[in-house]
Amino acid sequence: MQPLSVTLGERSYPIHIGTGLLNDDKLYAPHVASRNVAVVTNQVVAPLYLAGVRGAIERAGGRVLPILIDDGEQSKSWGTLDRVVGAMLAGRCGRDSLVVALGGGVVGDLAGFAAAVYQRGIPFLQVPTTLLAQVDSSVGGKTAINHARGKNMVGAFHQPLAVIADIGVLDTLPDRELRAGIAEVIKHGFILDLEFTAWLEANMPRLLARDRAALGHAVRRSCELKSRVVADDEREGGLRAILNFGHTFGHAIEAGVGYGEWLHGEAVATGMVMAAELSVRAGALRRPDADRVKALIASAGLPVKGPKLAVERYLELMQVDKKASGGKVRFILLDGLGRATLRGDLDTDLVRASIAAALP
Amino acid sequence: MQPLSVTLGERSYPIHIGTGLLNDDKLYAPHVASRNVAVVTNQVVAPLYLAGVRGAIERAGGRVLPILIDDGEQSKSWGTLDRVVGAMLAGRCGRDSLVVALGGGVVGDLAGFAAAVYQRGIPFLQVPTTLLAQVDSSVGGKTAINHARGKNMVGAFHQPLAVIADIGVLDTLPDRELRAGIAEVIKHGFILDLEFTAWLEANMPRLLARDRAALGHAVRRSCELKSRVVADDEREGGLRAILNFGHTFGHAIEAGVGYGEWLHGEAVATGMVMAAELSVRAGALRRPDADRVKALIASAGLPVKGPKLAVERYLELMQVDKKASGGKVRFILLDGLGRATLRGDLDTDLVRASIAAALP
Repeated sequence: MQPLSVTLGERSYPIHIGTGLLNDDKLYAPHVASRNVAVVTNQVVAPLYLAGVRGAIERAGGRVLPILIDDGEQSKSWGTLDRVVGAMLAGRCGRDSLVVALGGGVVGDLAGFAAAVYQRGIPFLQVPTTLLAQVDSSVGGKTAINHARGKNMVGAFHQPLAVIADIGVLDTLPDRELRAGIAEVIKHGFILDLEFTAWLEANMPRLLARDRAALGHAVRRSCELKSRVVADDEREGGLRAILNFGHTFGHAIEAGVGYGEWLHGEAVATGMVMAAELSVRAGALRRPDADRVKALIASAGLPVKGPKLAVERYLELMQVDKKASGGKVRFILLDGLGRATLRGDLDTDLVRASIAAALP
Repeated sequence: MQPLSVTLGERSYPIHIGTGLLNDDKLYAPHVASRNVAVVTNQVVAPLYLAGVRGAIERAGGRVLPILIDDGEQSKSWGTLDRVVGAMLAGRCGRDSLVVALGGGVVGDLAGFAAAVYQRGIPFLQVPTTLLAQVDSSVGGKTAINHARGKNMVGAFHQPLAVIADIGVLDTLPDRELRAGIAEVIKHGFILDLEFTAWLEANMPRLLARDRAALGHAVRRSCELKSRVVADDEREGGLRAILNFGHTFGHAIEAGVGYGEWLHGEAVATGMVMAAELSVRAGALRRPDADRVKALIASAGLPVKGPKLAVERYLELMQVDKKASGGKVRFILLDGLGRATLRGDLDTDLVRASIAAALP
């Protein structure tokens, strides 16, 4: 199948979506010949896929340096970044070397950031092995690690040379992670595509049953929608902010319960329920549409109630969110299903009430 | 006086050179209005200049958040970067905030890199307070920290919005640092400008006596020469590498004796003696020109002999230099005074002999 293309001038790149791509040396060949290739992956992914990817890269003429990190959000840290850079230096990687991020969002964010800063920047490939990474984090060039004071506070915009999204790898994904990925798929429908939202309402059982055709369609449509937004606004000056629908609340949830307790997609799911509630209270969205938001999220087995923290704690956590601009928190609201808008003028009491409505 | 301009398309920026600029709010005004401005500086520079810079930024409408780091190369570390980012987050800096790097090369490299990665990149100003920073590190957008396995191994290309180079601050610079800065001034003559080299030979006593007119000319001409190279090759794909004349040897010296023992400029000075010797042995440079290289360096009170390490240790340290490409070390040679060339085909024995010739 034809790859999608993310259109960013000289930084444009293809997204390959299909089955059996992970081990297809033809996809690696344009990027790896005669290069040192640092394949960054984690202890869960490596036993499943490292040998296959390694073989494909070697057949394409690359020399593979595998670098294993721990599984989990805590790997998006200075310490892990230091270890990856150290392993690359020990392995004699130079400015002409390549990084391959083989894993989920954590691996992609960390390895992508390592590539962005290694010797002031070298290229990388995204090989996402979770649904979340395939539909969201691998597309758009955002890379980052966390700071003790906030998630993704240290990072770079660094576009990959290509994304290789193999639908087959979703077979081994734990149910909880599959659902977390579906949260971002749903989000793309809510903010950009009513028709896709309706398709998701009709096909959720097929996605949860890992029907490959359904998953392939969901991944492709998500990547299409996201890459159009990214192409219009690579560095998040304006439009791109709509991709953060549900994320202002979601980041507060993740930080409030401690990173890793809730999966990112779970926090975003509940965050979208809160943001839809806020959209209704701000007069932007009709109540029945907010009900559809909540119902679709629930049908994916995702949480629609936030963790039991004080409402004021939510507000406090949202202040440090990086979308806070000049001290004022901006929100992405829906003004209809399939349409998003950015609002910076909301009364804090509306926000309080919207959080409270989604607490247990 | 008219500022110089570094021509980089939409990333073009002015370099202001003169006396009394540090406290001139008109130079800050275009960049700081209504912004949070994180002024990163160190414990040596702060007592001298922070109050003046702070006043100028506040008169221009900015809110100043001072962030002090330790003096010295050891501050180009993960730990210091983490502290700076943490202070900015605690101070509620957002994506519309600004970083001001007030200090020498270490402050500029660290603060510039902090700006490059803070929330995936925010703008910054360079306010260099050492000669080295004014003529070299503040121009060109290179930012970095060190890794235990090598200097400047983690960094970014991140252009400042402007450089404010106040010649008056050189009055308080220790002699040793003044000379270290002169090393990079001399370098720009050697690689690019025979006439400037002759001017330096004639005017070295004035520079060492801190004659402001002479220093002003040296800074301006150095910045002109460097910014032309940077404009042609922002990301060091080719031509820009000539700015590393003397640096392959110099980095080995710095690493070999431990960072901070030799100043960067001192190591580069001796590195240039070695590189000139290599140029002669490779048949590119005449012996009398190499003698002029050595004499000019000596006339600045800079070292012309390397630290007493085994020649093989030098070679080992040079292998991990980031200019090592595909395992092969490339050298910048002079093929005449005022002309540089890049060579990747040199016999290692020539390199050995050139190092040995400059050992005590």
